[in-house]
Amino acid sequence: MKCRKCGGAAVLELRRHNVAFCAPDFLEFFRKQVSEAVRRHRMFTRDEAVLLAVSGGKDSLALWDVLIEAGYKTTGLYLDLGIYDYSKESHAKCEAFAADRGAALLTVSVEQEVGAPIPEVRAVTRRPTCSACGLSKRYLMNKAALDHGFPVVATGHNLDDEAATLFGSVLHWQTEPLARQSPALPSTHPKLVRRVKPLYRLSELETAAYAFLRGIDYIVEECPFARGATSLMHKEILNRLEEASPGAKHNFLYGFLEKARPAFERVAEVELHECARCGQVTTGTVCAFCKLADQVKRAR
Amino acid sequence: MKCRKCGGAAVLELRRHNVAFCAPDFLEFFRKQVSEAVRRHRMFTRDEAVLLAVSGGKDSLALWDVLIEAGYKTTGLYLDLGIYDYSKESHAKCEAFAADRGAALLTVSVEQEVGAPIPEVRAVTRRPTCSACGLSKRYLMNKAALDHGFPVVATGHNLDDEAATLFGSVLHWQTEPLARQSPALPSTHPKLVRRVKPLYRLSELETAAYAFLRGIDYIVEECPFARGATSLMHKEILNRLEEASPGAKHNFLYGFLEKARPAFERVAEVELHECARCGQVTTGTVCAFCKLADQVKRAR
Repeated sequence: MKCRKCGGAAVLELRRHNVAFCAPDFLEFFRKQVSEAVRRHRMFTRDEAVLLAVSGGKDSLALWDVLIEAGYKTTGLYLDLGIYDYSKESHAKCEAFAADRGAALLTVSVEQEVGAPIPEVRAVTRRPTCSACGLSKRYLMNKAALDHGFPVVATGHNLDDEAATLFGSVLHWQTEPLARQSPALPSTHPKLVRRVKPLYRLSELETAAYAFLRGIDYIVEECPFARGATSLMHKEILNRLEEASPGAKHNFLYGFLEKARPAFERVAEVELHECARCGQVTTGTVCAFCKLADQVKRAR
Repeated sequence: MKCRKCGGAAVLELRRHNVAFCAPDFLEFFRKQVSEAVRRHRMFTRDEAVLLAVSGGKDSLALWDVLIEAGYKTTGLYLDLGIYDYSKESHAKCEAFAADRGAALLTVSVEQEVGAPIPEVRAVTRRPTCSACGLSKRYLMNKAALDHGFPVVATGHNLDDEAATLFGSVLHWQTEPLARQSPALPSTHPKLVRRVKPLYRLSELETAAYAFLRGIDYIVEECPFARGATSLMHKEILNRLEEASPGAKHNFLYGFLEKARPAFERVAEVELHECARCGQVTTGTVCAFCKLADQVKRAR
């Protein structure tokens, strides 16, 4: 296999693009996909302070690496979920990464904010584990950005993540999540910062290869609570489709963004208010995060 | 397991409905689902002549059985695809079924109409096998209905078929097929008859159980060309989702029809003309069927 660009020995084949690359040209390809995402969806400029949610995994650290290299003003945000050793190790990876590069890292503790660490939240709420955790993370990312004056939060969601989320929403035709599924969500309220996903054009395999080739030390384990999660089954199904027809995930996600999403945007228009309790944005009177925190408090 | 209705011994559990039935109550349930489909989508009345496409398989013969029992005016339409023994056997099943019940059966030969039987059409066209065959069948069903004065064609597509078709369209976000995916397509042109699918509320397992319990003699083999078809992979995937979460197919299809289809209908509006060659309906100048027949003629 030869590198499509330089003709040298390739280290990686990207079947969905029908190309192979040597290590330097793959890294170049990867960076270009990130800048293409940022440019196409006007995610942020070099003058803006970007808050980047980092988990210690390959995706968010690969993204941080690319953004730092490209000269963007980034600050890491680590949300400490309090999930035993998993959280300790992933925090350590983020701290080491930031220290190596002289980058700033904010840490927010879920235990302090919600009233209990995720394992306890999980026991208290009837929601599926990943649902209560995802809700808390989205809330705390936005809060941290508002508290520290960041206009935008970036996350490390990749093509596989986005395709799996879309797949789950489509199986139930959840029109609100479908309308919100986008690489770049604008701020639709003064208390809601922009949310962007600069890795949406890159697969999980590609971010893993990037992290490996760049020598990034990341946590390999998945969250222990993710086992059996529906999103993992959806990822397996999409991998099977991708295997049978390279580009399947890509076509599924991009096709949605181009051809179907506009139809759902028209359907779902919601009104946003400030939560009577915390002042953050909600569609109801009290936001889902405050309700969750109440539930945790009552159970303690 | 007890029958939900009579409390007797159940023979069949329907996990997605969370019920079990004895044989007579299952047959009753099955018939009710068909009448519910007919009623809800105003498919046809007892005064209308219905042309029912029959393949000799469990679905179309089960449907014919239900419609005859319910007193509808049906005529069977067998499309002879010329696929070796498979076609001979399936034709024989249809003829025996019709003779047993004193029902009328029309037979149309693909070889006569297209110029060659499907195995030869398959060799000539670059389309995937099922695509050329599907195109020919849709064309010939409509033509037979027009030629013999039927206002409506019914087919035996079941829930699994419909969910798999939807799945395929969604993976590529094919907006035109999405807009056309419906249990009942109205006539949008004087030369286009209505098309209806009275089994869309019943799964493949349910039609198989109905055919078995009613002692219907149907052809069990699948079409020999279907092997490896993408639609079969999609059915497998949907079966896996159904296994993990009973009702998944049902929710996927019904959710689409209720919540998403209206959005696509608005997007896709096409203008219909009469084909310059055969006079049937097309979006272009010469219809796809005439083009296919030309291709077959040139190759001979």
